[in-house]
Amino acid sequence: MPELRKDPVSGRWVIISIERGKRPSDFGMRVSPKKGGFCAFCKGNERTTPPEIMAFRPDGSKSDTPGWTLRVVSNKFPALNVEGDLDRKGDGIYDQMNGVGAHEVIIESPEHTLTLSTMPLKSVEDALWAFHQRITDLKNDKRVKYVLVFKNEGDDAGASLEHSHSQLIALPIVPQLVEEEIDHAKHYYEYKERCIFCDIIDQETADKTRVISENEDFIALAPFAPRSPFETMILPKKHESSFKPNGSFKLLAEILQKTLKQIDKVLDMPPYNLMIHTSPFKNETNDYYHWHIEILPKLTKIAGFEWGSGFYINPTPPEEAARFLREAKL
Amino acid sequence: MPELRKDPVSGRWVIISIERGKRPSDFGMRVSPKKGGFCAFCKGNERTTPPEIMAFRPDGSKSDTPGWTLRVVSNKFPALNVEGDLDRKGDGIYDQMNGVGAHEVIIESPEHTLTLSTMPLKSVEDALWAFHQRITDLKNDKRVKYVLVFKNEGDDAGASLEHSHSQLIALPIVPQLVEEEIDHAKHYYEYKERCIFCDIIDQETADKTRVISENEDFIALAPFAPRSPFETMILPKKHESSFKPNGSFKLLAEILQKTLKQIDKVLDMPPYNLMIHTSPFKNETNDYYHWHIEILPKLTKIAGFEWGSGFYINPTPPEEAARFLREAKL
Repeated sequence: MPELRKDPVSGRWVIISIERGKRPSDFGMRVSPKKGGFCAFCKGNERTTPPEIMAFRPDGSKSDTPGWTLRVVSNKFPALNVEGDLDRKGDGIYDQMNGVGAHEVIIESPEHTLTLSTMPLKSVEDALWAFHQRITDLKNDKRVKYVLVFKNEGDDAGASLEHSHSQLIALPIVPQLVEEEIDHAKHYYEYKERCIFCDIIDQETADKTRVISENEDFIALAPFAPRSPFETMILPKKHESSFKPNGSFKLLAEILQKTLKQIDKVLDMPPYNLMIHTSPFKNETNDYYHWHIEILPKLTKIAGFEWGSGFYINPTPPEEAARFLREAKL
Repeated sequence: MPELRKDPVSGRWVIISIERGKRPSDFGMRVSPKKGGFCAFCKGNERTTPPEIMAFRPDGSKSDTPGWTLRVVSNKFPALNVEGDLDRKGDGIYDQMNGVGAHEVIIESPEHTLTLSTMPLKSVEDALWAFHQRITDLKNDKRVKYVLVFKNEGDDAGASLEHSHSQLIALPIVPQLVEEEIDHAKHYYEYKERCIFCDIIDQETADKTRVISENEDFIALAPFAPRSPFETMILPKKHESSFKPNGSFKLLAEILQKTLKQIDKVLDMPPYNLMIHTSPFKNETNDYYHWHIEILPKLTKIAGFEWGSGFYINPTPPEEAARFLREAKL
């Protein structure tokens, strides 16, 4: 019998095929080997991207020249414009505003063939620092209400360039999915006076079947009601409402890279999307919302049922996915 | 400057690229030509599907034999089970229930190569009758709260068989996306004492730029804030809360097939998803919700930004999409 499960944070239902659960080898999606050729993100081609917004590079080395270990540039084809006013307006029944915001690319390594799971741990740590610095800087722009950091790995996950990179979009409104998570978390807090994510961590730690790994500060879990096979969530174990370093990003970089290595090992380098969910600027410090990273391997297709219902059909129970990932020999 | 637009029914925001709008030929997604080979949905192979639930066939012809013009069978790999109790239960913080429901396939034609846009109009009309009859029958099952009718055309839209077919999933809960549309529509009705969809139709009819076509009873529109390029919505012009025939389904079949022909012409047979949104059984007749068909051509990829935010980036303004479709020479 399939199982209907409800995600307690988003309110989203999923259908889990318990009996004929798909095993890792049943999915055919894989990231194509990187072909190389001219790449604007490679070292030496700095002049072919928009100018650097920031970079990690040796003291004294010049912007937009080689020597960097990480670069942040504007997206050449931005979804939103940095300049301009929001100019909110109505048109009868409809609401609209100018697409003001920022769209940046974080190039995590100068090397074309590396991925977040194969690059030096230090590069992953630096990427997290870059996310944090860019968020902190964008917070000064009063038009910006939220910054979404995300990564698309592989063409099937929407990556248009094969050189590893993350992106951020700074938005003039808090996105609907984040707002919904926050509403549910707030409602839960009002009722229980506890953070729903903290309660999830407690229950998962006691239950163990969906825990993938943990270290001193972080835990990686397969969510109870995952949208896709092998969906994974990384959360700080102690309540933290916003994405920020705890002295360093070392432990987060460690569990993130380990999780991606496990996913690559078990699923043979699947395409994936990664997103950071954090509290909006207007309420950065609170007791009800708990920042986290979501990793969605791209293994199934979104079809009419999903588009029409908001339900997801997941052929791999998270308990099995967690076991495969936990037992991966790295 | 890109534009942020809010869909008044779902509350969803989209980013519309106004300047460098993608034209129809900029999208490379196409349904592969139908290869043929053995097909369980073709006439003569009736014994290879689960038994017929219903069919349109000449009087006296036997179930599961040739002669039919339309067949409805259970999905061989159902997402939900017909037998069993819901057995709702909690597991600490989590909610779950058995995956009880129905998952049926509507084979709209015995001919392998036809599609909804190329089959005789009578077959489209019959398909709509079949949807209606199955919904009416499933309503008798007290475990069923909602029936979602949908269609996936083309592999990239999630179709696993190339022979044209629609599907329905009968669910023990009202799906989240439908619930959200209803909540917003109800809220609007409480405030304005008018149906939000009726207001949309009025405004669009006056404005004309997003109207694709209309006949006596129905209108086809490009929504103001579409999730994907060339998204299309078909609605009854007079308020109707639930999907049902108005004497016949002739005018609906006509506008539906015309719209699909326009989409096929302009986009060269793109993959697409089609969904019917109607009022849940518990409130089938009401003043606030207006049933409709949504057609989503599958031309762009859902990536980390969409997964993390619920925002969609749409490179084709709906005004342009509507003009292309309206002006298609059929």
